[in-house]
Amino acid sequence: MAKRVAIVGAGVSGLGSIKCCLEEGLEPTCFERSDNLGGLWRFTEHVEEGRAGIYESVISNSCKEMSCYSDFPFPEDYPNYVPNSLFLEYLQMYADRFNLRKCIQFKTKVCSVTKRPDFTVSGQWDVVTLHEGKQESAVFDAVMVCTGFLTSPNLPLDSFPGLNDFKGQYFHSREYKLPYIFKDKRVLVIGMGNSGTDIAVEASHVAKKVFLSTTGGAWAISRVYDSGYPWDMVFVTRFQNMVRNSLPTPIVSWLLERKMNSWFNHANYGLFPEDRVQLREPVINDELPGRIITGKVLIKPSIKEVKGNSVIFNNTPEEEPIDIIIFATGYTFAFPFLDESVVKVEDGQASLYKYIFPTHLQKSTLAVIGFIKPLGSMIPTAEMQARWAVRVLKGVNTLPPPSVMIKEVNARKENMPSGFGLCYCKALQADYIRYMDELLTFINAKPNLFSMLLMDPHLALTIFFGPCSSYQFRLTGPGKWEGARNAIMTQWDRTFKATKTRIVQKPPTTFENLLKLFSFLALLIAIFLIFL
Amino acid sequence: MAKRVAIVGAGVSGLGSIKCCLEEGLEPTCFERSDNLGGLWRFTEHVEEGRAGIYESVISNSCKEMSCYSDFPFPEDYPNYVPNSLFLEYLQMYADRFNLRKCIQFKTKVCSVTKRPDFTVSGQWDVVTLHEGKQESAVFDAVMVCTGFLTSPNLPLDSFPGLNDFKGQYFHSREYKLPYIFKDKRVLVIGMGNSGTDIAVEASHVAKKVFLSTTGGAWAISRVYDSGYPWDMVFVTRFQNMVRNSLPTPIVSWLLERKMNSWFNHANYGLFPEDRVQLREPVINDELPGRIITGKVLIKPSIKEVKGNSVIFNNTPEEEPIDIIIFATGYTFAFPFLDESVVKVEDGQASLYKYIFPTHLQKSTLAVIGFIKPLGSMIPTAEMQARWAVRVLKGVNTLPPPSVMIKEVNARKENMPSGFGLCYCKALQADYIRYMDELLTFINAKPNLFSMLLMDPHLALTIFFGPCSSYQFRLTGPGKWEGARNAIMTQWDRTFKATKTRIVQKPPTTFENLLKLFSFLALLIAIFLIFL
Repeated sequence: MAKRVAIVGAGVSGLGSIKCCLEEGLEPTCFERSDNLGGLWRFTEHVEEGRAGIYESVISNSCKEMSCYSDFPFPEDYPNYVPNSLFLEYLQMYADRFNLRKCIQFKTKVCSVTKRPDFTVSGQWDVVTLHEGKQESAVFDAVMVCTGFLTSPNLPLDSFPGLNDFKGQYFHSREYKLPYIFKDKRVLVIGMGNSGTDIAVEASHVAKKVFLSTTGGAWAISRVYDSGYPWDMVFVTRFQNMVRNSLPTPIVSWLLERKMNSWFNHANYGLFPEDRVQLREPVINDELPGRIITGKVLIKPSIKEVKGNSVIFNNTPEEEPIDIIIFATGYTFAFPFLDESVVKVEDGQASLYKYIFPTHLQKSTLAVIGFIKPLGSMIPTAEMQARWAVRVLKGVNTLPPPSVMIKEVNARKENMPSGFGLCYCKALQADYIRYMDELLTFINAKPNLFSMLLMDPHLALTIFFGPCSSYQFRLTGPGKWEGARNAIMTQWDRTFKATKTRIVQKPPTTFENLLKLFSFLALLIAIFLIFL
Repeated sequence: MAKRVAIVGAGVSGLGSIKCCLEEGLEPTCFERSDNLGGLWRFTEHVEEGRAGIYESVISNSCKEMSCYSDFPFPEDYPNYVPNSLFLEYLQMYADRFNLRKCIQFKTKVCSVTKRPDFTVSGQWDVVTLHEGKQESAVFDAVMVCTGFLTSPNLPLDSFPGLNDFKGQYFHSREYKLPYIFKDKRVLVIGMGNSGTDIAVEASHVAKKVFLSTTGGAWAISRVYDSGYPWDMVFVTRFQNMVRNSLPTPIVSWLLERKMNSWFNHANYGLFPEDRVQLREPVINDELPGRIITGKVLIKPSIKEVKGNSVIFNNTPEEEPIDIIIFATGYTFAFPFLDESVVKVEDGQASLYKYIFPTHLQKSTLAVIGFIKPLGSMIPTAEMQARWAVRVLKGVNTLPPPSVMIKEVNARKENMPSGFGLCYCKALQADYIRYMDELLTFINAKPNLFSMLLMDPHLALTIFFGPCSSYQFRLTGPGKWEGARNAIMTQWDRTFKATKTRIVQKPPTTFENLLKLFSFLALLIAIFLIFL
């Protein structure tokens, strides 16, 4: 009899997990609290408790070729960076294509997931759910937790002396939906992650004044990278990763700093990250320096004190009048339906082997999927996690002994982010390509570039020097996809298709012609001399 | 008795002209049609007939150090690119500082400016004005026309077959004020000048879909230029100008093309200008490629046909549903209050010597100020024109004989734009620095860099290699400003002041320290070897 798997949440991780279960012959049941799939990508005008929310203008930070499920490319006419409404359509297409909806129970909240009394033998779980006021309990052979890490806002109000006396409005970035609330207001955004930066930039189009307060500063990069190529298709390549991982850290960090400053000098724009040791993930925003240079967004240091109608920043004596404060201060991690003995979160670190498996369970029948922030794309990361996890839950793959797993987790806890750009944040860090390769190795699906270089050199070189798009994770092994090679070879075509909406014949300039003529003559002379 | 000068319009050119008249001891009377000064920089929610209008979000395309009056820098805390409301404040400060308001008659429309019967002897003009319904006539010794070139919209409706049947809304970009009208609409913007691009980008934040149609394509550059420096402080330098003017055109155009494509490849984004011979002025926009790569703005070729609710573009067969069409098709040039015998506009070219003086007048007592679009800033251009013009009107300087002037105008008419980036548009082209130097030479105010190199090398090098900011036009000659040298030497301080709103200590990296150490050791060894 097929093993029954409970999947909690029908967002990108949940959908990928359902598909992996079906692929491996398991019987998935996905419980989704809201009335539809899509998780955080489903925009609603009101905040829903327990579900990650987004603002109306959210656009993916990872481009379509890098952020699709590895056997399901985005339609070719989709833009390179996909706005949330289209992203949701894509997830619906994925669910329809692989017939995933039939496995999802909507409007069903998971209340608790507890070990069965015979857990040490059976590895089974009691899953208690609530559907339209009715509680139900069922036994599952395995559980996949796909609730993500963006549900519990972190609101450190105590760190802001005087906030109680503040007469304006304040709220967490999670509550932000539409910019019209900022019309003619003086807005202060605290925190310079992607959300904080997006909100400040968006507010700056309608507000009277916008301050963006950051303690540590940040690197900012644009989706429009070198020569306009999508940033992640240029930055996330196996070749660049190899270079970054083989050079000494000071040189890598110096090179990356130069690179980051080539768009705009971060010190001149008040953004320079002060503590290089704590180098943070770059913020992805196309507009930020343009808004700073036009005075529409003012970068400020941390806050010293909040007063009735104003704020005093550190290092500047003036009071700045403020009407609205947005705390873009991130999220805390929590699994409310799980007992602490299953997954423990300490100092923002969960004891999860390879970010997936609790280290202390007698049976490896519970996996956490998508509880990670790679400097890469979320979908392929969660999908590869699920591919391996499902094979562990099924019993095809096994985990190392607890001691090894605990060691891995502890090492990660101690490990400071080792090099800028290779980690996302301290708690949930992962070097995208290295992590993907590790997961693929577990299931024997990692492409062997050396042998490929002999058999299919064009593909091998494209994989090594080109973008590390997700299709290359489906070239071989279980879950192999026949379309993978073609998808890799056509990834740039789909990329250009989206922006070349006015086709131009680009005739070479006279100078280019001359250059070519010269090169040709030089070549002729060289050949002539060689054969002389 | 001081000569009486009528000035038409109290925008940037009019204000500069009033000040120049006062400086030279003339008696200016400025007639302003509306009830306040500022010209196009005064935003109003409704279009005013005969006055240039702007949309609410307009931000200067030229940075504050490059676009100020040459003896009146912007306040140092102003942003580098000044939004229109602040720009208007600056103009008001200028008017107050030099006591210009007393010379302005508001709500006074100039109906006609005609030669007096004794014009050939006196050079005088009859100026008929209308103030609150009352017509008045007065005699002036000279006239300065400061109405600009953005008052008569060019609406080539006949070029769009089927437009009569279009059921949606359409209007000229001049009528555009605020983006909310685009909410959830399908918008088509025709024409890719600065306004068209701005409007498309702005619409893309609220509209359902935005198309930007361009026949010829365009180069786009960002205010945030190399390493984040203001584009014109890097691009508009005497050194770069010299390089551009001394290299052969094909090489310059090849280099500039490479430079333009380094932000984003214009062919991949559908923007590549097809006809290099007709190379156009670059569009200044910080957001455009970011909006294209996220699919929020779709670049399209020219329009084949307009239908009831849709549009068919050339080279693509599909009908695209459209709700609103904006014609960002520019302006026509007109002087409604002047007889054709005074200034004739033919093929979009006015017969104006050095863009200022009509070639056919028996007396040079009429000047057109600010009827030019330099690839530089409008204010210093108009101001330098006025400085020279006023001295001609006063009789201190004289014009060459008509034959010479006509020859200059004809040469300009025949002359195709000679090199990309050096001209703005065919009709109103001018190489900024060359043109400024020419005007300064006329009034003996051009700084002599060779002698300065001996007397004040620091200043000379700053002027040659640094931004060609307007202060250097006030170092010497009539209208010399004592603060000019200091303003030049502190221009970068004022630039950084605006964005360094969070001061960071930038410690050098270990690698930088090592680099420095190595350089120092190498230097020691070199010295040691030399003295050995």
